[in-house]
Amino acid sequence: MLTGLSIIGHGIAAEQTEKLFSFSTLKGAQLPEGFSVASAAEIQLAIDKATKAFPVYSRISAIGRAVFLETIAQEIMALGDQLLERANLESGLPMGRLTGERDRTVNQLRLFAAVLREGSWVEAVIDTAQPDRKPLPRADLRKIQVPIGPVAVFAASNFPFAFSTAGGDTASALAGGNPVIVKAHSAHLGTNEMMATAIQNAAKKSGMPDGVFSSLIGEGATLGQVLAKHEGIKAIGFTGSFKAGMSLFRTASHDRLTPIPVYAEMSSINPVLLLPGKLSEDHAAIAQQLAGSITLGVGQFCTNPGLLFVTRDGLTEDFIVALQAALAAVPAGVMLNKTICSSYYRDRKKISAVDGVTVLLEGADEQGNYKGSPSLLQVSAKAFIQQQMLQDEIFGPASLLVICENESEMLEAIQGLHGQLTGSIYATGEDVKKYSSFVEALSGKVGRVIYNNVPTGVEVCHAMVHGGPFPATTDARSTSVGAEAIKRFLRPICLQDCPESSLPEALQNSNPLGIMRKVNGEYTREPIVPANL
Amino acid sequence: MLTGLSIIGHGIAAEQTEKLFSFSTLKGAQLPEGFSVASAAEIQLAIDKATKAFPVYSRISAIGRAVFLETIAQEIMALGDQLLERANLESGLPMGRLTGERDRTVNQLRLFAAVLREGSWVEAVIDTAQPDRKPLPRADLRKIQVPIGPVAVFAASNFPFAFSTAGGDTASALAGGNPVIVKAHSAHLGTNEMMATAIQNAAKKSGMPDGVFSSLIGEGATLGQVLAKHEGIKAIGFTGSFKAGMSLFRTASHDRLTPIPVYAEMSSINPVLLLPGKLSEDHAAIAQQLAGSITLGVGQFCTNPGLLFVTRDGLTEDFIVALQAALAAVPAGVMLNKTICSSYYRDRKKISAVDGVTVLLEGADEQGNYKGSPSLLQVSAKAFIQQQMLQDEIFGPASLLVICENESEMLEAIQGLHGQLTGSIYATGEDVKKYSSFVEALSGKVGRVIYNNVPTGVEVCHAMVHGGPFPATTDARSTSVGAEAIKRFLRPICLQDCPESSLPEALQNSNPLGIMRKVNGEYTREPIVPANL
Repeated sequence: MLTGLSIIGHGIAAEQTEKLFSFSTLKGAQLPEGFSVASAAEIQLAIDKATKAFPVYSRISAIGRAVFLETIAQEIMALGDQLLERANLESGLPMGRLTGERDRTVNQLRLFAAVLREGSWVEAVIDTAQPDRKPLPRADLRKIQVPIGPVAVFAASNFPFAFSTAGGDTASALAGGNPVIVKAHSAHLGTNEMMATAIQNAAKKSGMPDGVFSSLIGEGATLGQVLAKHEGIKAIGFTGSFKAGMSLFRTASHDRLTPIPVYAEMSSINPVLLLPGKLSEDHAAIAQQLAGSITLGVGQFCTNPGLLFVTRDGLTEDFIVALQAALAAVPAGVMLNKTICSSYYRDRKKISAVDGVTVLLEGADEQGNYKGSPSLLQVSAKAFIQQQMLQDEIFGPASLLVICENESEMLEAIQGLHGQLTGSIYATGEDVKKYSSFVEALSGKVGRVIYNNVPTGVEVCHAMVHGGPFPATTDARSTSVGAEAIKRFLRPICLQDCPESSLPEALQNSNPLGIMRKVNGEYTREPIVPANL
Repeated sequence: MLTGLSIIGHGIAAEQTEKLFSFSTLKGAQLPEGFSVASAAEIQLAIDKATKAFPVYSRISAIGRAVFLETIAQEIMALGDQLLERANLESGLPMGRLTGERDRTVNQLRLFAAVLREGSWVEAVIDTAQPDRKPLPRADLRKIQVPIGPVAVFAASNFPFAFSTAGGDTASALAGGNPVIVKAHSAHLGTNEMMATAIQNAAKKSGMPDGVFSSLIGEGATLGQVLAKHEGIKAIGFTGSFKAGMSLFRTASHDRLTPIPVYAEMSSINPVLLLPGKLSEDHAAIAQQLAGSITLGVGQFCTNPGLLFVTRDGLTEDFIVALQAALAAVPAGVMLNKTICSSYYRDRKKISAVDGVTVLLEGADEQGNYKGSPSLLQVSAKAFIQQQMLQDEIFGPASLLVICENESEMLEAIQGLHGQLTGSIYATGEDVKKYSSFVEALSGKVGRVIYNNVPTGVEVCHAMVHGGPFPATTDARSTSVGAEAIKRFLRPICLQDCPESSLPEALQNSNPLGIMRKVNGEYTREPIVPANL
């Protein structure tokens, strides 16, 4: 039933000689279906269609777009087990995880639909006219957020649903009124085609313009760069490696006439501070919980806890022994793809060989069957502080314990951290007070501070921030998960003395949408009664 | 009374051999006071102080920062006429204009103080815990905007107060909790010193940390590049030329380890659509109003109307004659500095020489006494569409009339426009309906759409957007004027299961600040009552 072709707006691409094949680490074999690489003309067609669709799509009401997102969710669910089975084959991820990820993905679409229905996301700000002001009258000024145009979304290897074809960036870009062109991830091309077809069906059913969505097949170095360089693309959403993210960032900010926003989520080792009070209360349970987080999904999460800070005190040794034992008990798991698997063992070896690093646990090398085994390394804070390369991400089920001789070492180590998606703090109430400088230093480095829990598990909700300072992302000003992600692909515009009949509903005096607005500096849902009435 | 030295935190720099002098176009002579170029060690000291001040300053309450901004405003007013006189000497701008600009600058500081006192600018979003949720409990998640760190602000030549030392970017960065390092503009170094001293005094009086503000003297190519490249600088605010802005953008996004946000406001020619219905109603008054806007401040505004679109119809010729006459009646005015004056005549000549351009009015070349004379050029829409260089900015009192033979030509010309700060539409209600495609196309290109008025005059208020798509700015996602500018130098952070006692006030259950928050998806000022109470 797979065609192996790119989806271009309401149509599909033609078959090409050059084809890509997904490799199944689960089967240990290449899957039989070939996927045609989109031709230059097809890429151009997708961008042309998106450019043409933009003014039409951006004018469709927020409710209309909400219906579109909800229809996508329905179409995804209608794919049934076939979707899960294909994703399982292509990613090696177990069915349970995939079922959960699919739920998360449709919930994400529905969350944005809810945000659209509520309506206040346009951040309406109104300053009414003051015709009698001295020395000069004040005009009527009304500000609203508007979409920016076609967005290129780069699918991620580690979330075939939630950060891929119909994932967060696609949902937030579409919600905001922007057409989307997805670059399918070459590791799960069948999953992509099913998802892209679901979106295409939803677009047709809900009357969206041809070009509101396309999904193209091709390699990052070719298709990816063409998209990043093309003047028709107005922003980029990416989740993946530091190298690929920075390559897109460079192209999109330099190698084109018009620099564009790049939201690349790239690299994070998610430090965990294990403070003495908490550790002495609960060290066995914490060790168990951390081992679960380090090995969850074979460690293939951007929020995997790759760095554990402990001080040397009475219970630290017990904690380390417990953690080591808990990790050793976790069997090696099938990894997402060949490259990730070989990189895992390579990077684990690289970090293990750094001066001062001790290997506490080294699971067997199971590259032969594409499995990743857990690993635990240890280093002194002194050595950690001196060697920046110890902050390089090992993508997989490995973590580095940093032993701090005293509090000032831990503080210095935290202060020297690169930007991160998350930072966790295991602490009692007393610890939080005593080590407030740690908490503060950590907060300056991360997008999310977590108390007494592991960083894996990113809730899709209103308050989530899945982002953080460089190199975790190229733009710390936004999040790729949660309702606030709708802000990514919007810009403000101010309408001065616009006739009431030409104002968008969100800015009209009567407030027909009933949204929260800032009127003359005050937040209100009340209508505006013009002075001359 | 001027020391000629950089201000570094609570201290001042030492005298150096290398000095800069301001040239007064009003006097036609260099001013006697020398200003010492900050040494490499002094630049480093300013950044070190800012880095150290950041955690202290960012913890000061919003009210404390509001008092600081209000104290700056008081200190500026206390400088009295001396400030105006020095700015007049250094910029050539008349006293009336400078008095108005000073008012605008202190009002701007007070607006941000009011925003801080109101408190909702932190955009608090709270999702409360759902411990009983299936399959997994939901954590308590609370999001808030936090400052990003030391900001480098580049002062502008054309607004010695409002876009310079104590201007918009300084005010918004300080309001958000970020230390500021200003690169003084070499054209008005005395004005800079007075303003910087006022800020320093205010910082001391209101108990702000040493390093919350510095103002450094030096050239753009040296000092500017050092600041843009330095890892201690976390964002840049700039107003000036395209060339200088892009040079900073390249450095700040590429030539350093950590790319940072660059808000460069650079180049805009502010198209004005003169639609037939409105023109036939009011052509004489519109010509008068436009002539005033084109020549206001000798045309040295980023919002100067440099491009006027008309269709060929009965009254267009009359309008052109009236505009030409009104412009011819405006005497040449003293320009800001020698470079701007010589560039004006050079660029005017360059555009005049382009194929198809007719010179309707060419004021005398008054470079000798640093004055800019008005100029009006004309071109067909066809020629305009074909030649991108006709969109190059002429910084000064010149404008280019584009004659459209029909509606589709005007639409095509609008669609081909580069990004702009503003777009004006002179239109009757009928015109707006009839030419809705023009309005829509223009809206996609600009940060502010103005109905029936000139683009000059940027109101400092809540709804203002002074920004727009590239090349008007390097980042269309924000504004450099108005209350929304506080968003520039902030990033979101999410606190997960943070103990109530460690939460910032804005996120505490009781909502002690009484701010507007989004709680479980709903906007409210109500406190949160924990389920277990």
